[in-house]
Amino acid sequence: MKRKITGTHSDELQPVAGNGLLDRRLFLKSGLTFSAVSIAAAALPQVFAAENRAEEKINLARPPWMLKPGESFSTYGVPSKFESDVVRFPSPNRAVAGNGVSWTPLHRLEGIITPNGLHFERHHNGVPQIDPEHHRLLIHGLVKNPSFFTIDNLLRYPMHSCICFVECGGNSNSGWNKSPSRAEAGYFHGLVSCSEWTGVPLSTVLDEAGMNKKAKWLIAEGADAFAMNVSIPVAEARKEGLLALYQNGERIRPENGYPLRLILPGLEGVLNVKWLRRLKATDKPIMARNETSKYTELLPSGKARMFTFVIEAKSLITSPSANMILKKPGLYQISGLAWSGRGRIRKVEVSADGGKTWAEAQLQEPVLSQAFTRFRIPWRWDGSPAVLKSRATDETGYVQPERNTLIAERGHHGFFHYNAIVTWQVDEDGVVTHSYDKEKSDSNGDISIDSGWE
Amino acid sequence: MKRKITGTHSDELQPVAGNGLLDRRLFLKSGLTFSAVSIAAAALPQVFAAENRAEEKINLARPPWMLKPGESFSTYGVPSKFESDVVRFPSPNRAVAGNGVSWTPLHRLEGIITPNGLHFERHHNGVPQIDPEHHRLLIHGLVKNPSFFTIDNLLRYPMHSCICFVECGGNSNSGWNKSPSRAEAGYFHGLVSCSEWTGVPLSTVLDEAGMNKKAKWLIAEGADAFAMNVSIPVAEARKEGLLALYQNGERIRPENGYPLRLILPGLEGVLNVKWLRRLKATDKPIMARNETSKYTELLPSGKARMFTFVIEAKSLITSPSANMILKKPGLYQISGLAWSGRGRIRKVEVSADGGKTWAEAQLQEPVLSQAFTRFRIPWRWDGSPAVLKSRATDETGYVQPERNTLIAERGHHGFFHYNAIVTWQVDEDGVVTHSYDKEKSDSNGDISIDSGWE
Repeated sequence: MKRKITGTHSDELQPVAGNGLLDRRLFLKSGLTFSAVSIAAAALPQVFAAENRAEEKINLARPPWMLKPGESFSTYGVPSKFESDVVRFPSPNRAVAGNGVSWTPLHRLEGIITPNGLHFERHHNGVPQIDPEHHRLLIHGLVKNPSFFTIDNLLRYPMHSCICFVECGGNSNSGWNKSPSRAEAGYFHGLVSCSEWTGVPLSTVLDEAGMNKKAKWLIAEGADAFAMNVSIPVAEARKEGLLALYQNGERIRPENGYPLRLILPGLEGVLNVKWLRRLKATDKPIMARNETSKYTELLPSGKARMFTFVIEAKSLITSPSANMILKKPGLYQISGLAWSGRGRIRKVEVSADGGKTWAEAQLQEPVLSQAFTRFRIPWRWDGSPAVLKSRATDETGYVQPERNTLIAERGHHGFFHYNAIVTWQVDEDGVVTHSYDKEKSDSNGDISIDSGWE
Repeated sequence: MKRKITGTHSDELQPVAGNGLLDRRLFLKSGLTFSAVSIAAAALPQVFAAENRAEEKINLARPPWMLKPGESFSTYGVPSKFESDVVRFPSPNRAVAGNGVSWTPLHRLEGIITPNGLHFERHHNGVPQIDPEHHRLLIHGLVKNPSFFTIDNLLRYPMHSCICFVECGGNSNSGWNKSPSRAEAGYFHGLVSCSEWTGVPLSTVLDEAGMNKKAKWLIAEGADAFAMNVSIPVAEARKEGLLALYQNGERIRPENGYPLRLILPGLEGVLNVKWLRRLKATDKPIMARNETSKYTELLPSGKARMFTFVIEAKSLITSPSANMILKKPGLYQISGLAWSGRGRIRKVEVSADGGKTWAEAQLQEPVLSQAFTRFRIPWRWDGSPAVLKSRATDETGYVQPERNTLIAERGHHGFFHYNAIVTWQVDEDGVVTHSYDKEKSDSNGDISIDSGWE
């Protein structure tokens, strides 16, 4: 039975938290027949409904592209020319060729898969163009059978697939700055992407090599001009490590490590060594530049955090987000991403009143371990200023911290591993900007993005 | 405790079905420490292990691409030039501009996601280049509120995501032919691809339009030059239908329906209307060309199957598959895809002796409803001729049929909905070819791919 709703006082449209957050189940398919009809009769037309009733004859006139045959088949497709502004945003380090990052435009994407062309980049000396016929993976050091592998060898090994995120340890680092970033969400938080990776379980190859009992670390090295290397605990690497050959079905692209990348689900991006050419088993870490002077965080105490491998839970509202404009008051869907290196996302809460009250968002299935989780919740914006936040909790019970808490613990000079709650301010004109909650310590520290990458 | 294995008679390496199929758990991560060490000590080196023990100094010499900085950042990435042969294979209909198909190279892919550039194509009059500013979706006919929607309107609606396959009803149609196809697996079965689609639940929009009780069908029409249209039962469309705007995270590409595609998980591809511009609610189907003269199957009885919407369970071994060569006897991983329009894949069985005995393959998690499911099983090839098959069973209990059974039921003139078990013959030289089991009826019928597409 369908029930008419004539105002905003129905149960379905009662707020579940302050400033207009509505029950996440409002848009759920299971109850949609009822809810959506209710919405159609009352609330939705304000924002959602077609703005013009159709003059059918107007619409039935054929547009130009129906008047002649279209383009032919293509052997490899590309995006529409009308989407040419949906791109990665490069932030090169001007001091070193090929050093820097490019950001995934998370604010322009939906779902959980990042298309390969838009997966973020972090390079130290550019993208090598590797001929797979001449690429080798060497496994040596404290192993019984030092060996090398061609790509053809590896392609004959048993494969495993994993949908997981990779996040640069330096993602969101402008959050440490004194003033809030003015960048779009993806150009502030988009050094994280999520793909289906397929490859050979690292444990298979390590077992073949026969690890010496003294081997506690693996020194992984890439075949780029920087010979980027890092130290990885063997125990971590064995858990779910992949010698990845495929990304989202096809072979990995050059900027993501073609022909071979180490994928360590849940661990910071720098450990996911691209263009992998060497794994050396050792009894201690190598203390490489990218684990000592970089990817290490100076704490207020003067001590440094090092070897902070695991990405802690984090979330981000991607729509609405910085520099978007809500055209008029009404019903909106808040949409965002959450992820944790420790496992599955258990819940994401959203606040529209700056954190005074919170409501639980809907999590899009499938909710996968160490992968992006898309969350969504309906929100009625009444046209007055609003402050949107999202807060992720993972299956270990870890809760994403407020910025003040993170700053109190880690100071302003961390540069890496910024995972604080992100705050979007919506003003009366519907303009969305990034903002910080008030905090005394905000007058300290002022770093820029470029200065941190080397 | 690790156990040494010195031959092929260990429990792990005992066949679980004829001609060398081994327990699917052999390669499972959960037991990998044990199994893989065992394998390393005995069986795996035959095929898997690095073929040359390393002279470390040889490998440590830096290849040319490490001697200079690599390429710079890019705003949108492309595959390596060394993968330029991993492409869709177009089969255009020479009689009609822009009519035909292009095939996904499933035999070159791994995992379950098809990258957007390689998603199969089926067009009737080419790919329109649509300006989204001027695209409209009209909903009219037996509805209370005929309306049209701009893309901007739709982007403000609540979204839902779904990882699912789309399969052309004509996929694998050369299976009806008298002689086995000589094409690679993807160029025979690759009119199916799997993506994460995100869009507005169709039910939301239909409820807003207010469906008349007499409205039992939706006539969906695309904005291509063919104005491709089909009839869809309202009840089917409401279940999980999406007005899809995003594919694998980014906006849909032109050849897959930019800016708007109807996605009906589990239903044959032609119903997933691209460039969707119109949904007309009616009391009966429109009897369009693409549901009467095409996408309808003549049965041996002289009757025709029409409106066969649901894709039945199907599977395919992608590696090894047609035109691949096994270089030498030893241990291999058989890998393939299974899918069903009726829900989840429950199991995939593999035979290496032409169907005399079967063993259950490992299903890669996540196993999702109406999506590709990757299956894998280890196999020891002894160098003698072998006949590989895979057989999918879905959660309804439906079992993929043998070809003889399908032909007996449907004759040779079906053209559409071919989902029989696929047989790969491995000869003594390791060359893989497509073959049929013997059957009396095989002398009937001989159709070619091109003749069926119009």
